[in-house]
Amino acid sequence: MKTNLLAVKKGRVQEKIEEFAKFGETANGGVTRLALSEEDRLVRNYFREYCERLGLAVKVDDMGNMYGTLEGKENKPPIVIGSHLDSVKKGGKYDGALGVIAGLEVIETLIDNNITPRIPITVVNFTNEEGARFDPAMMSSGVLSGKFQKEKMMESTDVNGVTFREALDAINYVGEYENRLTEATAFLELHIEQGPVLDNTSTSIGVVDCVVGMVCYEIEITGESNHAGTTPMNMRRDSLFVANDLIMSAREYLRKLDEQLVYTIGRMNVLPNIHTVIPEKTIFTIEARHKDPQVIRQVEAIVESLGNSPSRDLATIEIRKLWDRDTVWFAPHLRDLVEKSADALHYSNSRVVSGAGHDAQFIASYIPTTMIFVPSINGKSHMENEKTDWEDCEKGVNVLLNTVISLLENE
Amino acid sequence: MKTNLLAVKKGRVQEKIEEFAKFGETANGGVTRLALSEEDRLVRNYFREYCERLGLAVKVDDMGNMYGTLEGKENKPPIVIGSHLDSVKKGGKYDGALGVIAGLEVIETLIDNNITPRIPITVVNFTNEEGARFDPAMMSSGVLSGKFQKEKMMESTDVNGVTFREALDAINYVGEYENRLTEATAFLELHIEQGPVLDNTSTSIGVVDCVVGMVCYEIEITGESNHAGTTPMNMRRDSLFVANDLIMSAREYLRKLDEQLVYTIGRMNVLPNIHTVIPEKTIFTIEARHKDPQVIRQVEAIVESLGNSPSRDLATIEIRKLWDRDTVWFAPHLRDLVEKSADALHYSNSRVVSGAGHDAQFIASYIPTTMIFVPSINGKSHMENEKTDWEDCEKGVNVLLNTVISLLENE
Repeated sequence: MKTNLLAVKKGRVQEKIEEFAKFGETANGGVTRLALSEEDRLVRNYFREYCERLGLAVKVDDMGNMYGTLEGKENKPPIVIGSHLDSVKKGGKYDGALGVIAGLEVIETLIDNNITPRIPITVVNFTNEEGARFDPAMMSSGVLSGKFQKEKMMESTDVNGVTFREALDAINYVGEYENRLTEATAFLELHIEQGPVLDNTSTSIGVVDCVVGMVCYEIEITGESNHAGTTPMNMRRDSLFVANDLIMSAREYLRKLDEQLVYTIGRMNVLPNIHTVIPEKTIFTIEARHKDPQVIRQVEAIVESLGNSPSRDLATIEIRKLWDRDTVWFAPHLRDLVEKSADALHYSNSRVVSGAGHDAQFIASYIPTTMIFVPSINGKSHMENEKTDWEDCEKGVNVLLNTVISLLENE
Repeated sequence: MKTNLLAVKKGRVQEKIEEFAKFGETANGGVTRLALSEEDRLVRNYFREYCERLGLAVKVDDMGNMYGTLEGKENKPPIVIGSHLDSVKKGGKYDGALGVIAGLEVIETLIDNNITPRIPITVVNFTNEEGARFDPAMMSSGVLSGKFQKEKMMESTDVNGVTFREALDAINYVGEYENRLTEATAFLELHIEQGPVLDNTSTSIGVVDCVVGMVCYEIEITGESNHAGTTPMNMRRDSLFVANDLIMSAREYLRKLDEQLVYTIGRMNVLPNIHTVIPEKTIFTIEARHKDPQVIRQVEAIVESLGNSPSRDLATIEIRKLWDRDTVWFAPHLRDLVEKSADALHYSNSRVVSGAGHDAQFIASYIPTTMIFVPSINGKSHMENEKTDWEDCEKGVNVLLNTVISLLENE
């Protein structure tokens, strides 16, 4: 790394995070800022004003995505930095906001240092990353990348029947199709890890290789509902006991696959769910994630083989794949620049994968992209007690800043 | 059995069952006749009129229990026959009604045969056996036997906040405390089995030994809720996986106990129950029934030992006994009379236990009591497709009739 290292102004990242967290702040130190809510409108206005104070040109596209651009010496595709300002209900102040604030902070630091970048630098706030109010998650980056159809997204409704289109219009953030992010030199997203790996290994910076592929199944077991007191054990068709057998069997096989595989049975419903009635139906999900498609194929084989369990004599076993997604690998040259920046700054760092989804995974389909992670204390996120040390937040932004500087220098 | 055998008039039991089933009949051939509902009021009026047509003296007690009495030659404690006319929502036409109708039919047959009984014979309709509208089940027999407190029962409310007291008053079935069943020579309850044993063995008559004892536990497992994609397997505290282990372990031990033991995990709830979130809490019930208290003690030891599972390092395991009840043995002399009647009639019969609860189990605490079961096809009950062959219904009443005649003859 030939450049002199820059660093952001001490404490300013924390100040920005605390400032942004006032929009939708909760009693327990978290944030509720659902996409296109009044709190979202206010934080958007604040973001726009902040950009304008820095002298950035602010544009909004037809999905409500916001872009603040610092002009460069050359009118070439920009370096784009960002994430999202919406949150889940009772979420934390770091998830998403950190990545947007990092963009502002990088630009502000360049300005502070009287650096006019070779090419433009854009900070972006993507609309509705969380999908907490309007399904699906990562909606707008999905539209930009062609993964989702705009017209379908516009009709997505919240629990009150309000459509995305109506809500976007109501907060006055319908912009121009022409403003969409179509071309860029790089997209860089700084984000909290949302998992415990960095925190557990006392590592400040995660150099993200990929967003891991995943598959999600729903297994529906139909037995027979009978009286718990009067039906002998050998005359039962108990869907819950069959589920118990299948889950045990799945765990035994999945455990033997790669140690980086994660698998979760997060949802399970029993019908009729009465203590004195043998369960007729038990329905549960199995969701698994791994970067290697071969491992995901092994998971699929294991889950699909559950239908051939000896228990199928006792109940009907239906196995439905709800969805899958492939692993998204980030641009190796950007990942390497991130790693070199972290090394040059003498920050502890390691290669990690992202188990969660991010806007970056969609943007990566048409723009060279990578991500930087900072530790989530105890792996907590989507909770009011989500926390990342201020020092780690700052380190993350410094890594981003020096990655941008490398990109500006390396033509 | 020294007497000549009597039999009820062919087809009349079926007629009565169909007649009574008109009150609250459902589109699918079942019955919805919740306790103290309009349907219950109408069937009570019909029952009263039927009793009066037969010349019986009808009385109602302060719980709304109805008694129709045929005078005997001697003014001694009566032989009481009966069950309940209330049903669950979308229940069947046999559960409860058969036992009341049997009482009417026995009396009608005696009258048809010009038999004036030695002692009075009473047919009883107990209020709110099901507990489907007002908790608990077997409410009024519970009050009669001192198991439940009347004043507390009167305050039991339905889902609309209506109290039992208000509902009883509204249908005009508040009677006199003095009319309560306090003394009797015998109480006899004919009921459908509500289980598959008789049907599976093609046995027409179940000679009921006892209502089995039971115990019910709730097990609450508290782990930690984390992101399904970002939390490595070895850093998880997954309450559902712990539940899966505990259930498997409980099943393994319970399976080795007596083959007549039944055990059920009927209710299971997972929190937050989202496919992408590791379950923080899993709560389930284990309910077990057996006639031998020693076996129930073994069940308790097994369930309570789940707290010492190796999984306790991964989650907090709380084990709460929700309730238990002892086995209620029926009067051996009555049970023997039932068996002799069935044998004399050349009906296939066998000794069975009742896994379900019945008014008879409370009445048994102060009156010599027994029960007679007839087969439930496929063990179905509390469903619209609950069914017992008409022939078996009639056989059940014939056994009851001849048991009564034996009691009348044996002073």
